[in-house]
Amino acid sequence: MADVMKGIDWKTFQQLRGSEKKEYFTRDGSIFHVIMSQQFDRQFLDEICELTTKIRGIAKGNKGVSFLQSLLQGKRAMLYFVQPSTRTFLSFMAACQILGIQCSEVRDAATSSEMKGESQEDTVRTFSSYVDLIVMRHPQSGFAERIAFLLNQIRRPVPVINAGSGKDQHPTQALLDIYTLHRSFDNYGGIDGKRIAFVGDLLRGRTVRSLAYLLRNYRGVKLYFVAPPELQMEEDLKSYLKEQKVAFEETNTLEEVIPSVDAVYMTRIQDEYDKAGESKRIDYSAYYFKKEYLKILPPNAIIMHPLPRRDEIPVEIDGDKRAIYWRQVRNGMWVRVTLIAAIFRKDKDIKEY
Amino acid sequence: MADVMKGIDWKTFQQLRGSEKKEYFTRDGSIFHVIMSQQFDRQFLDEICELTTKIRGIAKGNKGVSFLQSLLQGKRAMLYFVQPSTRTFLSFMAACQILGIQCSEVRDAATSSEMKGESQEDTVRTFSSYVDLIVMRHPQSGFAERIAFLLNQIRRPVPVINAGSGKDQHPTQALLDIYTLHRSFDNYGGIDGKRIAFVGDLLRGRTVRSLAYLLRNYRGVKLYFVAPPELQMEEDLKSYLKEQKVAFEETNTLEEVIPSVDAVYMTRIQDEYDKAGESKRIDYSAYYFKKEYLKILPPNAIIMHPLPRRDEIPVEIDGDKRAIYWRQVRNGMWVRVTLIAAIFRKDKDIKEY
Amino acid sequence: MADVMKGIDWKTFQQLRGSEKKEYFTRDGSIFHVIMSQQFDRQFLDEICELTTKIRGIAKGNKGVSFLQSLLQGKRAMLYFVQPSTRTFLSFMAACQILGIQCSEVRDAATSSEMKGESQEDTVRTFSSYVDLIVMRHPQSGFAERIAFLLNQIRRPVPVINAGSGKDQHPTQALLDIYTLHRSFDNYGGIDGKRIAFVGDLLRGRTVRSLAYLLRNYRGVKLYFVAPPELQMEEDLKSYLKEQKVAFEETNTLEEVIPSVDAVYMTRIQDEYDKAGESKRIDYSAYYFKKEYLKILPPNAIIMHPLPRRDEIPVEIDGDKRAIYWRQVRNGMWVRVTLIAAIFRKDKDIKEY
Repeated sequence: MADVMKGIDWKTFQQLRGSEKKEYFTRDGSIFHVIMSQQFDRQFLDEICELTTKIRGIAKGNKGVSFLQSLLQGKRAMLYFVQPSTRTFLSFMAACQILGIQCSEVRDAATSSEMKGESQEDTVRTFSSYVDLIVMRHPQSGFAERIAFLLNQIRRPVPVINAGSGKDQHPTQALLDIYTLHRSFDNYGGIDGKRIAFVGDLLRGRTVRSLAYLLRNYRGVKLYFVAPPELQMEEDLKSYLKEQKVAFEETNTLEEVIPSVDAVYMTRIQDEYDKAGESKRIDYSAYYFKKEYLKILPPNAIIMHPLPRRDEIPVEIDGDKRAIYWRQVRNGMWVRVTLIAAIFRKDKDIKEY
Repeated sequence: MADVMKGIDWKTFQQLRGSEKKEYFTRDGSIFHVIMSQQFDRQFLDEICELTTKIRGIAKGNKGVSFLQSLLQGKRAMLYFVQPSTRTFLSFMAACQILGIQCSEVRDAATSSEMKGESQEDTVRTFSSYVDLIVMRHPQSGFAERIAFLLNQIRRPVPVINAGSGKDQHPTQALLDIYTLHRSFDNYGGIDGKRIAFVGDLLRGRTVRSLAYLLRNYRGVKLYFVAPPELQMEEDLKSYLKEQKVAFEETNTLEEVIPSVDAVYMTRIQDEYDKAGESKRIDYSAYYFKKEYLKILPPNAIIMHPLPRRDEIPVEIDGDKRAIYWRQVRNGMWVRVTLIAAIFRKDKDIKEY
Repeated sequence: MADVMKGIDWKTFQQLRGSEKKEYFTRDGSIFHVIMSQQFDRQFLDEICELTTKIRGIAKGNKGVSFLQSLLQGKRAMLYFVQPSTRTFLSFMAACQILGIQCSEVRDAATSSEMKGESQEDTVRTFSSYVDLIVMRHPQSGFAERIAFLLNQIRRPVPVINAGSGKDQHPTQALLDIYTLHRSFDNYGGIDGKRIAFVGDLLRGRTVRSLAYLLRNYRGVKLYFVAPPELQMEEDLKSYLKEQKVAFEETNTLEEVIPSVDAVYMTRIQDEYDKAGESKRIDYSAYYFKKEYLKILPPNAIIMHPLPRRDEIPVEIDGDKRAIYWRQVRNGMWVRVTLIAAIFRKDKDIKEY
């Protein structure tokens, strides 16, 4: 059954680079586990985007809605969210419901058997016994990866989707961002060659990291990291970009960057990760998208935000047609529909609909 | 899209009277948001009652059950219950399930993005992105109204049902009470002309307030407010009734009222709203329905209770055929089915079944 | 409607022996409530086992999955789990989903109306108004029984399944254990005549108690109670076995027993029931299944565990084909499917499929 990850032990596996792990998240040439951005290549990204647009079209009619609901009827998913996240949780739940998957959820580690001294591996293996898919969010970096490795060894492996693990990876957020860029630039040559500014707390926001990993798949992209010096992008990711020959520039002046970009990706300050209130010493208001910037932002550029937001984008901006963060939320749901359908090999049925 | 509430700002909107707000909760002449009792008129109430009876009939057979489940297949509802309420929550969830709607829930504000500094408006707008209906209970008076106003402004508005907000409104409870009265007096001339005693903590129980608002739609109704002086009905509602020419009488002697009423609406003391244990100084037992009252209660009269009860109705009374509070619970589920069906304009399909 | 339990009051009912209560958990000759192991006889156990195997076969194909999902389409279940139990909860939820039943859940007593002073009986009666089945776990011994008694008196009774109550009964766990034994000995003469060792904290583990009750239904069974003296099986159960003529032996040496048994039923120490840390004084490691025991365990014997486990079975043993505790988990789900189907009298449809 579990033909992948065989012949490799956990220690060796961990030492592989992200892109080398890809085959272990695959089964018979098709995606099985969704663990990290590095496992996606350009071909996969293009297919997911195309399929998502197709699915959204199908969902516009009543017959299409029924077709989608019939695709995975009888399948069951477990949403295992140890770390609080209403937004991602609801997005996945809606995605499952659209495909006719029935969900169960575990959202509080305290209700689980872990209290009774069970290992986390046994807990997840038990969950896997009842369902056909596990979607998990966990505070511990690498946890989803460890579970995917574990499940690959057992008799009845089920796919795992990483819905955020630690400060590190949030691959489905990255996919929805890619899809949002893809759609927005559909009539403007696609993502290749676009200039994208990432603004705010780049040190601690995993969405930016995950998206930056994916952007190496596009030609001639240029990234701007606009952040207070204390919250600039970490060295490891910058080394990665250099190695992958992705152009980037660091700055702390938002206003100067805006006139020359195709997309502005705003983020909030992640002060929940503060160790001693260090955020309070930073003037984050310099990283707000001010109303007057709308005048200098190019007419076809877009404003993105992974949400939730605080004050970095005032509500008045929501009405501007370039502000697409609310559409981004819906895109997230649809991309997750696509991903789950692909895991269960329903891409062909969808294409032929 | 959002043609209603346009051209009106939040301040102006708030100054409207309840009944004037009605049009803003409507779309193309049909109910869209369910926010307050004042938005229901006699015609609407009669239609809801008729439709509910029809639905209950349909649900008696297996084919009917399947028909109902097919009506809103593919729709998704969010049950957003910030204030604890198992009863109303389960009633709405069952109603959704009966119609084939898939539910997701948020019951604890702490799991939500509000923790991350998001505004309540953004939170609800995010929820609305994933679903087709929001049912919400909130401790803040007027919150559901504010959300309905907000959602009317956006590109993809979804209907909102107020499942209780603050001490003020609980419109679906009022509708189920109306339906219960309607059914009980079906062979006795309907609700018009009936005498109804409200008993107990009338100051702090929102069910009584909501129902009293609705009763102005019926001719010749007489209300008795039976309460300890400290917990009598508030002035604003009494002024409203006077203005609407609804007869009412205040008293603190339950026993005297019982022989001359058609319905006794019992309520428990709402001591969770006590500021300094003031309930303890009240002898609430004078507002219990004692077993011997069964002898003086008219044979066709009914005993209602919104539940949960404490000691104001002893369990021995449950067996009397005039005690209909358990049926009231089931009615609540069916009225909610009807209301949701009406919001999605399935009333015609149901009538024609 | 409720023809059973009529003519008997709660006090008299409580004084009945377990097996005498059976008829009160039955309706028109068919099982209605699932409350205690003593209500199952050999014929019932054989039927449940046969039906479970049939259902597992049906579920292997897509058409079968749809058939199962159609069986109870339109039914609603309430999972009322006051005591934390992710495992049993998820198993029941999956079982409901397999049969097309829609679930709602109450898992935290604090969100319920009990806070508002409602009696537990009223709470459960309210829940029963919205659903067709109640599955409940409760810390109080005998609670499920009391609720079954109560519901039998009302106009619209719904079946109750006890998913664990107090330290006493966990009948569906016992059924899944029986099914696991039944399947494992299918080619070896069935459960009759088998020797089964129960190992560990027999004093406080309700799974062992429930299973031991059921084993009296099989001929020539021999039980070994392998436990530290402080945690040996209680007198009441031993008296019961003597009375039922079930052979058993007590010992505190695991190693000696292993070569001569057909099944080893391991359990963890239940130190959550400790009053003053008394478990710490016990050397529980003497009740671990050590890797070298694999050599002395007969080739057709099986190793069971109700899970969660701690260190009493090392992970290395999972790979041995006699280690069937992970299959036991899946069996639990399937046995619950069978049981629910039987309650709603779908056994015939399943047999004829």
